[in-house]
Amino acid sequence: MMLKIIKILHLIAAGLTYLLALLSKVLVSQKEKEKREQAAEWEAYALSWRVAVEANNVRPWRTVPPECHTHVQTYMSSGQYHSDLDLIVKQILSYAQTLTLSHDGFDAWILDVDDTCVSNISYYQAKRFGCDPFDSAIFKAWIMKGMCPANRAVKVLFDALIERGFKVFLLTGRDEATLGKITTENLHNEGFVGYERLILRSPEFKGQSAVRYKSAIRKAIEGEGYRIWGNVGDQWSDLQGECLGKRTFKLPNPMYFIS
Amino acid sequence: MMLKIIKILHLIAAGLTYLLALLSKVLVSQKEKEKREQAAEWEAYALSWRVAVEANNVRPWRTVPPECHTHVQTYMSSGQYHSDLDLIVKQILSYAQTLTLSHDGFDAWILDVDDTCVSNISYYQAKRFGCDPFDSAIFKAWIMKGMCPANRAVKVLFDALIERGFKVFLLTGRDEATLGKITTENLHNEGFVGYERLILRSPEFKGQSAVRYKSAIRKAIEGEGYRIWGNVGDQWSDLQGECLGKRTFKLPNPMYFIS
Repeated sequence: MMLKIIKILHLIAAGLTYLLALLSKVLVSQKEKEKREQAAEWEAYALSWRVAVEANNVRPWRTVPPECHTHVQTYMSSGQYHSDLDLIVKQILSYAQTLTLSHDGFDAWILDVDDTCVSNISYYQAKRFGCDPFDSAIFKAWIMKGMCPANRAVKVLFDALIERGFKVFLLTGRDEATLGKITTENLHNEGFVGYERLILRSPEFKGQSAVRYKSAIRKAIEGEGYRIWGNVGDQWSDLQGECLGKRTFKLPNPMYFIS
Repeated sequence: MMLKIIKILHLIAAGLTYLLALLSKVLVSQKEKEKREQAAEWEAYALSWRVAVEANNVRPWRTVPPECHTHVQTYMSSGQYHSDLDLIVKQILSYAQTLTLSHDGFDAWILDVDDTCVSNISYYQAKRFGCDPFDSAIFKAWIMKGMCPANRAVKVLFDALIERGFKVFLLTGRDEATLGKITTENLHNEGFVGYERLILRSPEFKGQSAVRYKSAIRKAIEGEGYRIWGNVGDQWSDLQGECLGKRTFKLPNPMYFIS
């Protein structure tokens, strides 16, 4: 009798074990499914957000939304960012090809510096690709290393513009007094040689928005008699305001926003 | 002797069959790998192209590049397009929320019609999502059906703007004489009720670029004393020129380009 009961209890225990294993398997796969669905939802949102940033629909913004971290990281690191740069540079070069220059030394082109000519991905990588707030001290320390690598595609553009006869102006919001020397050296070391002028932010423009500062500089350049054929930057504030140039091009940047 | 030879030949034939099967398997998997790599390359290119279109870096363009067909089809059909619309409408609504209206009946907002308020995906689906050239006769026949469905997200925006007290102007490049009646009916049937004015292209603007025509209309609206707080369209030509409004929003459209 006792033996029979034990046998039955044993059977029940075995069945229970089996059922619990099955249940935990179902729950785990349910959780994994939810995780996959969440990731897919965030990916769709992040792609929408990135495109909206590029089309200047989102502004201003301080940090990359946390849901977009994986997307922006992948975008910047796994080739799509460089694919984007390549395509835009091709568009710029075919536009430049259509222009009839007068070759009087006044055919000008404006290029921004940070995340246009040279890249700050290294700094932003440590800041979770823009999800963490901007840290001006750490950023300055990074710039002072003079180690910003050239954006390969923009370097190709830079060389082609100079070869074609444009006077290239590099226009940056970097502070002239503290960052002028290292910026000049960094650009030189990365092969940016032969430009007309590197223009940094002098004391009179301190505290001004990028739109205002850069507009004033472009106005002054036009005032000298230059014709600005093209203007390339990674921020919409490079491409808004006055004296924009005959055509502007927006390079991608989902990591930060400057107004 | 003969039997031995036959046996050896049989063995050779069997070996050969095996080797050929192996080779064809390798070749097929190689071909499939190449196909997958090609598809991945086109996908990366198409995504770059679409984002460059949204940022107004590619212009003008006549048809969607053939390599981008699958990408644009998937984008328009499988939710990402609507995810993009949703995100932008949210941005617009939070912007509208920040505005202090004077409620004197002159707080205005401009909305484009085609692929802003209502959708032409049905027409473009039959044109391989813009890979085939535009066919004005077939497009007109489609419009004359009066069956363009509302873009759900933009309908929500439209209602919210009217609720908030804006005078909404619907501004379209459609021909007034031939498409005025059907456009009014189509919009009404899709729930676009309560707008201030629907403005179609009258004879005096025939043949003018969208930028010129729409600028002239916006100028006239401002001339009547209206303040244009916002301006929303799927084409950059809706958002360029004069009297743009305090802020513009670019809705996605990778299917066609109007200059």
